[in-house]
Amino acid sequence: MKISIAGTGITKFGELWDASPRGLARVAVSKAIEDADIKKEEIGAVFVGNMLSGMLGSQEHLGAFFAEELGIAGVSATKIEGACASGGLAMHAAVTAVLSGLYETVLVLGVEKMTDHKPEDVASALMGAGSEEERLSGVSFPGLYALLARAHMDAFGTTEEQMASVAVKNHYHASLNPNAQFHNLLTIESVMKSSCVADPLKLYDCSPISDGAAAVILTGKKIRNGVSIIASCVATDTLSLSRRKSLTELSATREVSKKAYTQAGVTSKDIDIAEVHDCFSIAEIMALEDLGFFKKGHAAREIAKGHVTLGTSDRLVVNTSGGLKGCGHPVGATGVKQIVELVDQLKGRVGERQVKKSRIGLSHNVGGSGATAVVHILKK
Amino acid sequence: MKISIAGTGITKFGELWDASPRGLARVAVSKAIEDADIKKEEIGAVFVGNMLSGMLGSQEHLGAFFAEELGIAGVSATKIEGACASGGLAMHAAVTAVLSGLYETVLVLGVEKMTDHKPEDVASALMGAGSEEERLSGVSFPGLYALLARAHMDAFGTTEEQMASVAVKNHYHASLNPNAQFHNLLTIESVMKSSCVADPLKLYDCSPISDGAAAVILTGKKIRNGVSIIASCVATDTLSLSRRKSLTELSATREVSKKAYTQAGVTSKDIDIAEVHDCFSIAEIMALEDLGFFKKGHAAREIAKGHVTLGTSDRLVVNTSGGLKGCGHPVGATGVKQIVELVDQLKGRVGERQVKKSRIGLSHNVGGSGATAVVHILKK
Repeated sequence: MKISIAGTGITKFGELWDASPRGLARVAVSKAIEDADIKKEEIGAVFVGNMLSGMLGSQEHLGAFFAEELGIAGVSATKIEGACASGGLAMHAAVTAVLSGLYETVLVLGVEKMTDHKPEDVASALMGAGSEEERLSGVSFPGLYALLARAHMDAFGTTEEQMASVAVKNHYHASLNPNAQFHNLLTIESVMKSSCVADPLKLYDCSPISDGAAAVILTGKKIRNGVSIIASCVATDTLSLSRRKSLTELSATREVSKKAYTQAGVTSKDIDIAEVHDCFSIAEIMALEDLGFFKKGHAAREIAKGHVTLGTSDRLVVNTSGGLKGCGHPVGATGVKQIVELVDQLKGRVGERQVKKSRIGLSHNVGGSGATAVVHILKK
Repeated sequence: MKISIAGTGITKFGELWDASPRGLARVAVSKAIEDADIKKEEIGAVFVGNMLSGMLGSQEHLGAFFAEELGIAGVSATKIEGACASGGLAMHAAVTAVLSGLYETVLVLGVEKMTDHKPEDVASALMGAGSEEERLSGVSFPGLYALLARAHMDAFGTTEEQMASVAVKNHYHASLNPNAQFHNLLTIESVMKSSCVADPLKLYDCSPISDGAAAVILTGKKIRNGVSIIASCVATDTLSLSRRKSLTELSATREVSKKAYTQAGVTSKDIDIAEVHDCFSIAEIMALEDLGFFKKGHAAREIAKGHVTLGTSDRLVVNTSGGLKGCGHPVGATGVKQIVELVDQLKGRVGERQVKKSRIGLSHNVGGSGATAVVHILKK
């Protein structure tokens, strides 16, 4: 694909009580424009990934909203929504826009402001990603992922300590990321002792409620020092877990990664760094299996052994940003943040958390409990 | 552009108390698939245009939702939102997807179920298309368009009777469309006597609250009897009327139509039929000026003279479907319905409301009070 990432920008993620969605977007986009060394007038289209602004803030029409806010009212602008995969889907829409030839340079903005609302309202709105059957049953997303965790434990002997090791790793990585929500280190013991959210998932198995924005500028122009996008794919599955053939895998992740490897002409063995969707610790374990990095049932022990941790991995490092768990999970921003982290790694500009061998990176963004999965593969 | 419309499908529009969004989508999409003479497995991506499902129905994630409902879970699927331009934006996203080469055949589904909710909740949710300033001021969309109407009347002497003639024409067209919400004819007098909604706009100057779905199948394949898309463009403007330079035009419409004529290599004079965004009668008047069909300030009298009415026009016929006013306005479906009507006209299969000379058609879909405008130009 003849398409490059010209620049990236990101805000700090976290509970940003003093920040507005407008302010967050301005910061992330200004940085991306500066990084790309373009004038904002060169942007021909804006793709906004956001899930909750309508339900929680009564503000829809975010394409035009942010085009105006960024001072480029006039350009093509679209809001893309696919639950927690909204950012990844916005990225994919932007890729198709550039490849179409109708646009040369476009902006992807992922943004979410979650902390301004009551936690119970946020939890309820997030269930808009699931099925009506699930909402009526009263289950929450921690509950859905707890069901997946239990099925994985039953099938493969995955342990709660192994799941905890995902959080420990991702908090370690987050501690090296100035923009991450959390900088505190966890231990297996501290995760195991944290309060139960939905058995077997504990508080520290769960990604937090976060605010933040991330921006990426894509171009079809030939540029120097750009990062190439070599795959951009989407796959879907049923909204309800009850309609799935298996609870120990996300078939959308399996399907989308197969498509993406074919599109990029690489295999899972070629990936040096990956940002995967660890909304809950079990999600990262399943992702590393479904993406083909480990055999089914093997990922948990590999993660626990430090085999995807910065400094101890000799092959693949996962979630150097800190992942959703450590870096935070402002839902519409997450899929775009993953791209920002990969680009910054591939460009060798992330300081302490730099992965030495980082030539090819993969992002994996999931909506709901796996009804949407988006994969991008980037190359230096 | 090497892209064709292979098939279209639509439901009846109206207050469909017994219909669900799922059911509406199934009907529209089944018809489109049958019309395109393809197997549903050939669909590689789904683009859903919808505005209100999250805010009113708590159901987001409609890409995956409808892919599952249509029995094609697995494919790429995305929800696109841009207020009342959601359908047009979904169409544009689908066009870029096919032109990108990543997808060959894709489905656009516009769907909205508005009547299941209290009218005041619908009115409030619709204000998600406007700015916070407008929401806090307590203004509604009829109020915003009333301001535009008053400005137009002041600047050009446009009369309430001339505005009423838009509704009379569109109800006449709707009376010939079996799928339209309204089949009753209006007179200037009946419009003028209808209750005042937001002075100078009366009830019959306003499009209704509606349910409905429309579907279009696009393909990059060479096909027989397809309709070609020769332009697909989007432009934006400020959300707030208060930030606009002029209240007598929608600059997004002016900009997007200029781009579209250039892209298609045609002028406004080449357009035989147009489906324009007449959410209020004043909106059609402004649209016909901003799209370049009439000089500024001239459209109202031309419409009143019957110059864009079926049977009496010798040049351009506008809103043969009945428009938003007569056919109904299920917001996310409207932009897709416009395409369905144009295709059916260009293919000469709309019976009584057939425009004899229909070679090139234009659709014009607006979000909010003009913050988003989408134009497509189609050719037989």
